[in-house]
Amino acid sequence: MGVVVTDVPRADAEVVEKLGKAGVATVHEAMGRRGLMGPGIRPIQQDMGLAGSAVTISAPPGDNWMVHVAIEQLREGDILVLAPTSPCSDGYFGDLLATSAMARGCRGLVTSGGVRDTRELRAMGFPVWSQWVSAQGTVKETVGSVNVPVVCGGALVNPGDIIVADDDGVCVVPLGEARAVLARAEQRMAVEEGKRARLAAGELGLDIYDMRGRLAEKGLRYE
Amino acid sequence: MGVVVTDVPRADAEVVEKLGKAGVATVHEAMGRRGLMGPGIRPIQQDMGLAGSAVTISAPPGDNWMVHVAIEQLREGDILVLAPTSPCSDGYFGDLLATSAMARGCRGLVTSGGVRDTRELRAMGFPVWSQWVSAQGTVKETVGSVNVPVVCGGALVNPGDIIVADDDGVCVVPLGEARAVLARAEQRMAVEEGKRARLAAGELGLDIYDMRGRLAEKGLRYE
Amino acid sequence: MGVVVTDVPRADAEVVEKLGKAGVATVHEAMGRRGLMGPGIRPIQQDMGLAGSAVTISAPPGDNWMVHVAIEQLREGDILVLAPTSPCSDGYFGDLLATSAMARGCRGLVTSGGVRDTRELRAMGFPVWSQWVSAQGTVKETVGSVNVPVVCGGALVNPGDIIVADDDGVCVVPLGEARAVLARAEQRMAVEEGKRARLAAGELGLDIYDMRGRLAEKGLRYE
Amino acid sequence: MGVVVTDVPRADAEVVEKLGKAGVATVHEAMGRRGLMGPGIRPIQQDMGLAGSAVTISAPPGDNWMVHVAIEQLREGDILVLAPTSPCSDGYFGDLLATSAMARGCRGLVTSGGVRDTRELRAMGFPVWSQWVSAQGTVKETVGSVNVPVVCGGALVNPGDIIVADDDGVCVVPLGEARAVLARAEQRMAVEEGKRARLAAGELGLDIYDMRGRLAEKGLRYE
Amino acid sequence: MGVVVTDVPRADAEVVEKLGKAGVATVHEAMGRRGLMGPGIRPIQQDMGLAGSAVTISAPPGDNWMVHVAIEQLREGDILVLAPTSPCSDGYFGDLLATSAMARGCRGLVTSGGVRDTRELRAMGFPVWSQWVSAQGTVKETVGSVNVPVVCGGALVNPGDIIVADDDGVCVVPLGEARAVLARAEQRMAVEEGKRARLAAGELGLDIYDMRGRLAEKGLRYE
Amino acid sequence: MGVVVTDVPRADAEVVEKLGKAGVATVHEAMGRRGLMGPGIRPIQQDMGLAGSAVTISAPPGDNWMVHVAIEQLREGDILVLAPTSPCSDGYFGDLLATSAMARGCRGLVTSGGVRDTRELRAMGFPVWSQWVSAQGTVKETVGSVNVPVVCGGALVNPGDIIVADDDGVCVVPLGEARAVLARAEQRMAVEEGKRARLAAGELGLDIYDMRGRLAEKGLRYE
Repeated sequence: MGVVVTDVPRADAEVVEKLGKAGVATVHEAMGRRGLMGPGIRPIQQDMGLAGSAVTISAPPGDNWMVHVAIEQLREGDILVLAPTSPCSDGYFGDLLATSAMARGCRGLVTSGGVRDTRELRAMGFPVWSQWVSAQGTVKETVGSVNVPVVCGGALVNPGDIIVADDDGVCVVPLGEARAVLARAEQRMAVEEGKRARLAAGELGLDIYDMRGRLAEKGLRYE
Repeated sequence: MGVVVTDVPRADAEVVEKLGKAGVATVHEAMGRRGLMGPGIRPIQQDMGLAGSAVTISAPPGDNWMVHVAIEQLREGDILVLAPTSPCSDGYFGDLLATSAMARGCRGLVTSGGVRDTRELRAMGFPVWSQWVSAQGTVKETVGSVNVPVVCGGALVNPGDIIVADDDGVCVVPLGEARAVLARAEQRMAVEEGKRARLAAGELGLDIYDMRGRLAEKGLRYE
Repeated sequence: MGVVVTDVPRADAEVVEKLGKAGVATVHEAMGRRGLMGPGIRPIQQDMGLAGSAVTISAPPGDNWMVHVAIEQLREGDILVLAPTSPCSDGYFGDLLATSAMARGCRGLVTSGGVRDTRELRAMGFPVWSQWVSAQGTVKETVGSVNVPVVCGGALVNPGDIIVADDDGVCVVPLGEARAVLARAEQRMAVEEGKRARLAAGELGLDIYDMRGRLAEKGLRYE
Repeated sequence: MGVVVTDVPRADAEVVEKLGKAGVATVHEAMGRRGLMGPGIRPIQQDMGLAGSAVTISAPPGDNWMVHVAIEQLREGDILVLAPTSPCSDGYFGDLLATSAMARGCRGLVTSGGVRDTRELRAMGFPVWSQWVSAQGTVKETVGSVNVPVVCGGALVNPGDIIVADDDGVCVVPLGEARAVLARAEQRMAVEEGKRARLAAGELGLDIYDMRGRLAEKGLRYE
Repeated sequence: MGVVVTDVPRADAEVVEKLGKAGVATVHEAMGRRGLMGPGIRPIQQDMGLAGSAVTISAPPGDNWMVHVAIEQLREGDILVLAPTSPCSDGYFGDLLATSAMARGCRGLVTSGGVRDTRELRAMGFPVWSQWVSAQGTVKETVGSVNVPVVCGGALVNPGDIIVADDDGVCVVPLGEARAVLARAEQRMAVEEGKRARLAAGELGLDIYDMRGRLAEKGLRYE
Repeated sequence: MGVVVTDVPRADAEVVEKLGKAGVATVHEAMGRRGLMGPGIRPIQQDMGLAGSAVTISAPPGDNWMVHVAIEQLREGDILVLAPTSPCSDGYFGDLLATSAMARGCRGLVTSGGVRDTRELRAMGFPVWSQWVSAQGTVKETVGSVNVPVVCGGALVNPGDIIVADDDGVCVVPLGEARAVLARAEQRMAVEEGKRARLAAGELGLDIYDMRGRLAEKGLRYE
């Protein structure tokens, strides 16, 4: 019953790169606050941010067979997104699979399951965002699917969507919206740069954003 | 329905400083084991400890309007304590607000909600203890209150209370008890220093604290 | 009602050392995937792995009296394994106890309870894997037991069992199986070494492990 | 930025009815084990099962304004599916909204947020499956969307999809697959009926499903 | 270090009774949405609501000695509120203590710890709201306090405060606000009664509350 | 690698019966507070208590093949105890398996995994204590073991141990201790009966257990 979709379109490499630079918080705002994975998906490394195109894996609990299948579908700049079909903390992925994935151009892994060999993965420079860390191994008995839509961390991921990930978590940008989201993200960053200087100088958000009147209107009073 | 209390008394700066040096575990002991936030409130940085005076924020879920209001109330040496009125993991606070808060003398943030831009916050040297990390943004639609009593991480915080925070968590010292707690904390540290040397030399707690008799009395037997 | 068992056999030091080098994921595989603690038991430090012989502690909630008793039973190369008798996040163990334990040759602590003074413990080079970090202190009122079988993180630990711990978690090797497990672990590492080179060169697991036929048989289809 | 889609197609009433009779476990199997919400979504009542067409709500945390908007879109036989845009346990829905929804033909509510007035809802015969029960009220300040795709309990729900819910949880059947899934579910139930009689008579699954050979082959041994 | 405060004022019995009839959701609204315990505090029985005056207990983890002390302080119409000083799921309270408490006029128990003998408690008609159910027993070794302020389920409870509890959870009304809150609650119920009839007749909240204009203004559009 | 142990000794039926009547809280006390499963293992039914002999199942995540194997090993009065080898909420067991198990004399199921068909199981009178309820199905691909020691809900269960379960949770009595535990449980119940009458008459535990002196000695003071 498993399916592998083989020729999934990806976004333009430059757009992906720039979304990664913008970072999760900015991209999520530029998306109108959609597409964020829940706060349970955490990085195993610190101070790292990037973006890539999603190669998705739908895998049975405790079975990582489809990871091998997915690796063949990887292209330069891809990120693996692995969603167990029911909650599972097992270590679906470790240093051997990362070696293989990196050899195919993979930039990292995002999973609502578990990962292992975390020390080795950090040493290899292979970034991971996962729900769990667990040495628990998996079997290779039941087929799943590759490059089908999956829900990971509460967010819908279609193959080819852009995954933006950093210390704040993971955000999913639909392939068709990538350019528009980037444009809004860059606009947002430009605006923020101006704000930052004024705030650093001690000016208050209350004044910069002209909030005092509306706060009074809503009934805020000072004692 | 929101209220901002504007002239909250703070503890003496030197007392605050020394409570920060004593650290959470020691201060909590010196308090008679009261005032500790629950173990869900965790630092986003490592190997950092400090203390400051609480400026409290009671904010609706997903609404950080009151943070702007609170920043105006900050003085040198304060710590923001933000408690959502119902459980909420949203990122109430990020690098722009931290820029603004630092410009007003703020030392850090403690929140039972979420925080974002964690990499930038670490880079800026703005410490945070939070229940969650999440890029999820917030709105500015509903007023809350500033400098009212709040419950954060299961602990009651009154404005002006001293917040002591380090890698072990966060402890709240009521303003009126600060000097007495510090005195007991320093006494405790002096006693511990002597114990440490004896323990390092291989002496046993069983003997130092004279526990063998009482253990036997309570029925402990060796096999 | 408490018991202390005093002369527990330990595994050969060299075997223990080598199991530590093999690491949790490999040892857990070599055990036939038994003995792993659940993913809630996490290290307070990063990039550290080791092994040691278990000195077990069964302690009442919020009572660390038995830790003092256990420290007397420590020998060079031991690891303390502390299991509260009901779920408890209190900080059973801090820098003073670590000073004492290190003076007796202890290599680290594994606990389904909580730990405190985590910054100091990292500075001392005393590794900890715990369910919780909490400054909450404990009392010394009720006896428990030392060197009895305990369940920690969902795994059964008998005194003298070998504890292998690293960034992926903690695995328990029964004393009587240590040599056999090590043999299988070393065999496994040798095999993996060969695989790693081929995967790094871009060869696919699908081919190395000859999976394509069986996948087709199970119904996987490409679109 | 909110959108309301007004003329969403629904499945045939008879098909929906029969899917409800089949129940969640059977329908989920007939779907190839897709579409199940996670085990955190639980009923507030016991021994109740039904199905209906999804009217979806994407709502900000702590803001139930869109529920009023959604109620206007309800038709006989619909089920409201409410997904907060970030985790939120607030009580989005209570007896007044249920009164209104029932007046428009609504059969129940499924939500990854919270619900209140649970006693009254049970008394009214309005079934609910929710992640949380909480009396915490919500505001009406920020628009969301109605009848857009949402992720609820980890499952993707498109407006018009068939929601099957009972004591085991909630399953989502895509509108376009409803007839095919029903056919497979009914087939499955027929087969199970035969099995049930044989099992009740004491025959073993090991024999009915002819498992002994394959178990031996996989290495199972009896001691 | 423990304290028992013996002559705590209580609210007027009739006010308490009426607050109980109003129920948690209504009272919480009438409080301006303050005072609600978090959604982790759940009833062990169904379809039960009441109110009473708080007799508070601050107890060490795994130690229920103070419950005996608190029972002596009970008066007709009181509710015990038990908060462990650190998170603890142990069964602090069972049928024997309930027998004793009922004999002193106690109406129920609210606890952020655990409870046991739940079947017997239901049979006795002694209602409980607790964070946990656990048969795990407790010791009587360490003193705590009775009738001091405690934080339970994230809410501050002062002795004598009115506890309102039903299937939606638990709300705390400060003693000094009881009459005012009741007045607002009754006003609210009267208003709701009128709304209910109109909603039951099929009128929409969108029209009753005149929301259409403001929704359009905030940018909601229909497709 | 799987093993089935076929001729496991059981406790005397009358002893088992009486342990079930004593109930979990009493038996756990009589065991010296050992053997209790954690508070996450909850009944799917209400007001039901019983005991039986454990037939244990160690099963891979998401794979219930071994349940079929275990059913053949059942005798009148047994209880199935199913522990996944890593955390798994899948529905390992439903009404068909219950039909089969009941036909072999099985009294119920205890599992740290999930269960489904809960409405049908209640209707059949087949009691279950489980960590999860989930309709998620399982596969039959990987062998596990039957009647080996397992850890379930944090408690060690050996095949043939007596499982006591009621609304408070689940307790495990080692086979060899059954008679002694029963004796202590019955003694305890006799003592409690006398206490209950005195407490119901309004006498205080403070006086019955003569606690006042020791409380004063430990520093409790009345204000």
